[in-house]
Formats: sequence, structure tokens, C-alpha cells
Amino acid sequence: MTASKDTDQWVTAEQLEVWRLFIRAQSRVIRRLEADLLAEHELPLAWYDVLVRLLEADGRRLRMSDLAERVLLSPSGLTRLVDRMVEEGFVERAQAERDGRGFYAVLTDAGYERLRDASGTHLRGVHDYVVGRFDDTELATLADLLRRLDP
Amino acid sequence: MTASKDTDQWVTAEQLEVWRLFIRAQSRVIRRLEADLLAEHELPLAWYDVLVRLLEADGRRLRMSDLAERVLLSPSGLTRLVDRMVEEGFVERAQAERDGRGFYAVLTDAGYERLRDASGTHLRGVHDYVVGRFDDTELATLADLLRRLDP
Repeated sequence: MTASKDTDQWVTAEQLEVWRLFIRAQSRVIRRLEADLLAEHELPLAWYDVLVRLLEADGRRLRMSDLAERVLLSPSGLTRLVDRMVEEGFVERAQAERDGRGFYAVLTDAGYERLRDASGTHLRGVHDYVVGRFDDTELATLADLLRRLDP
Repeated sequence: MTASKDTDQWVTAEQLEVWRLFIRAQSRVIRRLEADLLAEHELPLAWYDVLVRLLEADGRRLRMSDLAERVLLSPSGLTRLVDRMVEEGFVERAQAERDGRGFYAVLTDAGYERLRDASGTHLRGVHDYVVGRFDDTELATLADLLRRLDP
């Protein structure tokens, strides 16, 4: 489990180092993206993510279960998050009309405005901290490698 | 901000897709690693991470601020986590002797035992879900690309 003991039957120390590099790289990027959004727009990254997913959806609305899947949150975690966003006026809840089961989260005009204000900051960060550091060939290589991690 | 509108001055739609792939790949891997640790050892991944960092440290102890830096948690988040691990007997607190400022977190024998029991599960997951999916050359390429994300 230490650097030397990690050379067990499963993973070499070198392999473990790459895994740690992967975790660390993403954590740092996420922290920077979040810090920028908070500093410039008082918007947590998870909120931004919810707003984007709603904007991209038909009718700017998603069933809560579909939204949870897209933002990679547990249903209970998403419920708490959306509750706070409803209080801020960025999202509304709407009952699912057809079958009466469950709720939709719907993007409000205020949510859209906030997203529009913040998107420049976020996309500049995605460029500066991530994609702008690679040329097209490197980015394609990275994408190929990442797809290997799909189930 | 939609797939088409993301083609702004900062990021193309293709670049944004790679960024989303990156986030999604890591989130899925983390979820699987955590699910395995919880199912087989009732151990959250963040706890495992704390135990490993302490085991690797001199004297199996780390100053709280150093530990927070290594596990990528905020100081307040780490304090809550360590409080729970102290209750479970996996970690002890010790006052920093020399300068009297701050505390160390120290790995206990019970913490070591739990880590030893769980490490096979975790490292098997790191192999199966991540590093075992690449050959040495691919892994070196991935590492080179990830290092590009350093500050």
C-alpha cells in the first residue's frame, strides 16, 4: 500500500502513479473552474452544470432522474441541489403531465440569464486549464484513451 | 452554451466533448471504486485515501494541513472526515510537539488493519477499471498528457 508495497498482483507503482496523476489533474482543474465561477458569478460549478443540462434539453426541462444521471449526482443529492436553485429562482419544478409520476426541473429566465453571464468565464477556464493545452492530435489521442475507461 | 453555441471564442464543441468525456470517465471510475469498497469493506473511498496517505507518511502521521493537501479536501472538510474516523478508531489526533501549533492525524493499528483488508479490493479496481485497460506505451502517453494539466 506504500509506494513499494503497491507493486502487488494488481497494480505496479508506476501504474498507481498514473492513476493518482489522473485524479489530481482533474481535482485541480475542477477547483480552478469552481473558484472562477464563484469569484466572478457567485455560482457553484454544480449549479452551472445543472443550468447547462437544462438549457440543452428539449423545452429546457428534464425529469429529475434524467438530470441526476447527466450531472452525475445521486437522486437525493440532486434534490437538495435543485431545492436551493428553486429558492434562488433559477429553476422551477413542474409535475410530469403525462403519467403524473415524478417532477421535471425547468430552467427559468433568471437561470438562463445567470448561465449566459457565467458561460464566458467557465468556457475560458475549460480552454485555459484543459483543452487549450493540447493540439488537435493530442486531444484526439486523449479522447481515445479516455473512451477506454467506458464500462 | 448548447452544443452549437459552445463553439464560441474559447472552446469548440469538439473540445468541450473531450472535457466532458474526461469528467464522466473519472466520475464513473470513482463511483465503481467506492461501490466496491463500501460493498466489501464498508469503507468510503475518502477514508481509504486518508488511511493510505497516513501509512505512507513518516511515523504514520501527518499534520492536518498536509493531509488536507494530499487528499484534496478543504481543511474543514478534512476535519469532519477525521472526526468520524477518530470515532471509528482508525485515526488518532496528536498535538504537534515541537511548535504546539495544530494537530497531527495518526494511523492506528485498527486503521492499518482495515486498510490492509481493503487494499486488495481497491487495487483490483484500479487495475480493472483504469490502468489494466492500457499497455505500457499508452499509459505513458496518458501520463504525459495529464501532466500538461499541471499549473
